[in-house]
Amino acid sequence: MKKIQGTVTTPKGFEAAAYAAGIKYQNRTDMAIIYSTSPCISAGVYTTNVVKAAPVLWDKAITDSKELVNAVVVNSGIANACTGAEGFSYCEEIAKTTQEALHITHQILLGSTGVIGMQLPLDKIKKGVEKLATLKEATLKKGQMAAKAIMTTDTKAKEIAVEIKVGEQTVTLGAMAKGSGMIHPNMCTMLAFIMTDANIEKEALQAALSEDVVSTYNMISVDGDTSTNDTVLLLANGQAKNPIIKKGTTEFAAFQEALHYINEYLAKEIAGDGEGATALFEVQVKGAKTIEDARIIAKSVACSNLTKTAIAGHDANWGRILCAMGYSGVIFNPDQAKLYFESEAGKILIMEEGVGVSFDEEKASKILSEKKVKALIELKEGTSTATAWGCDLTHGYIDINADYRS
Amino acid sequence: MKKIQGTVTTPKGFEAAAYAAGIKYQNRTDMAIIYSTSPCISAGVYTTNVVKAAPVLWDKAITDSKELVNAVVVNSGIANACTGAEGFSYCEEIAKTTQEALHITHQILLGSTGVIGMQLPLDKIKKGVEKLATLKEATLKKGQMAAKAIMTTDTKAKEIAVEIKVGEQTVTLGAMAKGSGMIHPNMCTMLAFIMTDANIEKEALQAALSEDVVSTYNMISVDGDTSTNDTVLLLANGQAKNPIIKKGTTEFAAFQEALHYINEYLAKEIAGDGEGATALFEVQVKGAKTIEDARIIAKSVACSNLTKTAIAGHDANWGRILCAMGYSGVIFNPDQAKLYFESEAGKILIMEEGVGVSFDEEKASKILSEKKVKALIELKEGTSTATAWGCDLTHGYIDINADYRS
Repeated sequence: MKKIQGTVTTPKGFEAAAYAAGIKYQNRTDMAIIYSTSPCISAGVYTTNVVKAAPVLWDKAITDSKELVNAVVVNSGIANACTGAEGFSYCEEIAKTTQEALHITHQILLGSTGVIGMQLPLDKIKKGVEKLATLKEATLKKGQMAAKAIMTTDTKAKEIAVEIKVGEQTVTLGAMAKGSGMIHPNMCTMLAFIMTDANIEKEALQAALSEDVVSTYNMISVDGDTSTNDTVLLLANGQAKNPIIKKGTTEFAAFQEALHYINEYLAKEIAGDGEGATALFEVQVKGAKTIEDARIIAKSVACSNLTKTAIAGHDANWGRILCAMGYSGVIFNPDQAKLYFESEAGKILIMEEGVGVSFDEEKASKILSEKKVKALIELKEGTSTATAWGCDLTHGYIDINADYRS
Repeated sequence: MKKIQGTVTTPKGFEAAAYAAGIKYQNRTDMAIIYSTSPCISAGVYTTNVVKAAPVLWDKAITDSKELVNAVVVNSGIANACTGAEGFSYCEEIAKTTQEALHITHQILLGSTGVIGMQLPLDKIKKGVEKLATLKEATLKKGQMAAKAIMTTDTKAKEIAVEIKVGEQTVTLGAMAKGSGMIHPNMCTMLAFIMTDANIEKEALQAALSEDVVSTYNMISVDGDTSTNDTVLLLANGQAKNPIIKKGTTEFAAFQEALHYINEYLAKEIAGDGEGATALFEVQVKGAKTIEDARIIAKSVACSNLTKTAIAGHDANWGRILCAMGYSGVIFNPDQAKLYFESEAGKILIMEEGVGVSFDEEKASKILSEKKVKALIELKEGTSTATAWGCDLTHGYIDINADYRS
C-alpha cells in the first residue's frame, strides 16, 4: 500500500465539482458533486440515531439494493433532518434533477450537513445541480474544491488517497470527509466519501466498510452527540480492471488495509479538527480483557468533558482519566492501572497501580502542549488493545455552538 | 409536610461546625462536622464508578452494617480518591481522632471532595477535627457554616429543612449538599447529607433513600462525569420520639414525601449551580412507553453538550434536542414528537410531529434567557413521565476546569 497525494478524483473515472449555491453561507461554495464516468457499486454505513435525516433514508435504500450509482451530490448549510415528508420529497427531486442534468439513469446518492430542522431551498439546489453537471472534470483541483464545499465549522478540508496492487493492476482509493461538531459516530460518522476504481464484489465492498468503521469513525468523538446525518459512502467503479476482489482473499485483505488506512486518517482528521479544538487527543488502552472493554474505556476517557478541558489547559489531571475509566461501565481493577502521557515532546509515567507517581509537572505540561497528545493506559487484565480519538474542549466550542443557527 | 427555614442542625439533637484547616484553599473554611448528641442509624448510597474514593469505601462498610453513628466529618479541597492503601488508612486515623476528640465510641462517617489523586495532609485534618469538636453547637448558623465549608466550585451553599407530623410528634429533616463539577450521578450524587430526628427502622431508612435517588440525584448532570466520591448519607437519631416508622405505612409514605422534597430540591440546586452555569435546564418527557424510556430520553437531552451550549446562547435550536432524543437508545417514533420551551417568560410550541413549526424567534429567545428554562417533550407513545435537570455549558466551565489542580 502506498499513500499518494490525492483526493476523490484520483481513482480512475471519478470527476468532481463545487459550486456556491447560497444555501446558508455567503461567499463560499456549499455544494459538491462526485461523478463516476461508469456506474458504481456502492456500500454505506449510517447513523444509529433513531432520528435519521432524509438523505440518510434515501441513501440507505440505494446502498442496500443492487442498483448502480453514478454520482453523489452533497450540500452544506442545511442538514435536511427533521424535515418530514417534504424533506424526503426534496431528495427525490434533487436526484431526478441530477439524472436529467447528467443524462444518466443510474441512482444518485445524497449528503447534507448543517442546521437541523430547516427545509432546503429547492430552487437554489436544483440550479446548483445543473451548474455542477457542467463544471465537473477529472482534475485534482476539482476534487479539492469538492472537499472544501462540504465543510461547515471545519477549519480545513479532509482528503486522502492510497494505491494498492491487485494482480498486475494498480487500484486507487480516494476520499474526503467533513466534521466537526455533533461528532460521536455510532456505526459511522458525519459525511465521509471514499471512491475507488477497484473491481470488487458488492458483498465484499459492504463487508470491508462495515467492519472497518468499528475501529475508525466509531472510535472518535468531539462532543458526544451522535448526528442525525452520519453517512460514510464507498463507491467502486471497477475502472482499474483488476481481477475481481472477493471476500476472504489476499487481495481483499490488501483492500481492507488500504480502506482502514483511509478511514483512520479521516477519523483522526475529524477528531483533531473538532469544533474549537487546539489538539488531537488520542487514548490508547492496552492489556484489556476484551477488545470491547478496551474500546469502551478508551472512548469514555476521550469523551469526558473534564479530561478534555484538562487537555485544553495542558494540565496533567490524571485523576479525571482514572475517573472516566471507572464510570465507563467496564469492570477492571483500578489498583493495577498504569498511565503515561506522550507526545512529540516526550513520554512521562503519571500513575502506577492506580496511584499517582511523583512526576515533573513542567515536563508533563510541555508534553500536553503539543498538537497531538496521547494518553497511554495499561490495565494488566488481558491482551486486548484499542485506540480512541477526541480533542480538547475550549472556549472555541462554546463560541461556535451558542448561536449556530444564525 | 411543611418547608421551614433550616439546615442540618434543625432536626433535634444535631450540631455542626466549620473550620479553616488550609487543606488546599486559603482564607476560607474547608472542614465541617455534623454531630448528633445521641447515636444515629444510617443509610447511604454511593457512586457506581469502579474507582471509588477511600471515604466511599469507609462509609459503605458502616451504613451496610448495624453499627450506630455519631458524626460526619467532611473536607473540601482534596477528594482522597485514587490514594490506595495510604488514603484508606487516613480514613481510619481521622475517625479515631474524631472519636477521641468527642469522647465517643460510635462510628464516624467521612466525606471528601476536591482534587483526585493527592493524599490528604493528615496533620492539618487531625488538628481540624480537634478544633471542630470544640466548636460545634446546635445553632442554625453553625449548620450554615458547615454547608459553606464543603463547597468547592459551588457558587452558593445548598441547604433545606422540612417538617412532617408522625403521630403527635413533629419530625424534622435537615440537609446540605455540594456540587458542582464531575456531576453525573449514578446511584447518587456528590456529597449530600440529610439529618433527621425521626424514629425509624433502619431498613425503612435505607429503602426510602435508595428508592428516591433514582428520580432525584440520578436525574441531574452537569458534565456527564460520574465522580469517584458520590455519597448521599441519611442519619436518623430518633429524638423526635415519634412512634417508630415502618415500611409500607402511611407514616413511611409521609417520610418518603419529605425526603423526596429535600432530595429533589438539592438535586436541582446542584444542577442549576453547575460549573459555569447561568441557567438551570429542566427537561420533562411526557407520554413515554415506560418510565425508564422517559428517564433515558430526558437525561440524554439534559446531558448533550450541543443542547447545553444552545441554552447558553438562548438559541431555540430544537433540532439538537430531537437529535439527542434520537441517540438516547430509546426506540420511539420521532414523527409524533412535540416540543415546547417554557420559563417564567412564557411557553412556546417549537416542534410538532417531528417537524419545526413557525414560531416567534424573539419570544423563544426571551423564554430561553431566564434563570430556569424548561424543555417539555411529548411523545404519544404511552403515559410515563420523567424529569431531568442540567445546566447550560458556558465559557465559565472551561475556565474552571482547564487548570483545576493549581
